[in-house]
Amino acid sequence: MALRWYSTVVDARDPRALGRWWANALEWEVFYESDDEVVVIPPWALELSRTLPFHRVPPGFVFVAVPEFKTIKNRLHWDFAPHTSDDREAEIARLIRLGAEHVDVGQGDDVTWTVLADPEGNEFCVLSSRED
Amino acid sequence: MALRWYSTVVDARDPRALGRWWANALEWEVFYESDDEVVVIPPWALELSRTLPFHRVPPGFVFVAVPEFKTIKNRLHWDFAPHTSDDREAEIARLIRLGAEHVDVGQGDDVTWTVLADPEGNEFCVLSSRED
Repeated sequence: MALRWYSTVVDARDPRALGRWWANALEWEVFYESDDEVVVIPPWALELSRTLPFHRVPPGFVFVAVPEFKTIKNRLHWDFAPHTSDDREAEIARLIRLGAEHVDVGQGDDVTWTVLADPEGNEFCVLSSRED
Repeated sequence: MALRWYSTVVDARDPRALGRWWANALEWEVFYESDDEVVVIPPWALELSRTLPFHRVPPGFVFVAVPEFKTIKNRLHWDFAPHTSDDREAEIARLIRLGAEHVDVGQGDDVTWTVLADPEGNEFCVLSSRED
């Protein structure tokens, strides 16, 4: 097991703004920040990096500056799961207040997930709750 | 902390083939498999899901069937880190043997990472080693 999944890298027009947005949305930490690159990690990642085997340290997000805007539906997207049904509605409302928007990627009306987009239009989903 | 990063979802022409490819590439497990959806998780995720707080369980990959092919550079991609320099060259050679290809996304010659693409053309990077 020689490869560790280190991060998901996101092309961004404004890495600072988008990185901070995601840190805020997930209650993660901005670990590194410049005009070109912002690294956002789960707050428990640093602690785990001292105790876990190398490949088990959880991945973070890296936002890197690109000149081009997003043009089509992303081929990769993130799914997030709320713990309870109450959490789910509250989290979606919170994300919308932060600036997320509902988007239609052809998901239809009868799906159990909610499709949102971040401020640069990157689609992501809030799944049904995982109480079980 | 009510949202857990549950997965990265990848649009795929052939979720079975692509999901198995990534499970093999990372030495992860195929947790669920159908014609429409393949879920690939780190082998330690199930164990951790019984002991860790909900939001700390590490995310997996989900490959879902879509009719369209990849057309442009993905706006999100994965980075993987080898532990040592020796690991790095061996892992890149192994990925190439499995069917990954070197791709040029304008990275130039003087970068510390190697850009590869999986069998459906999704870009990913093998970073410099993390021995420090």
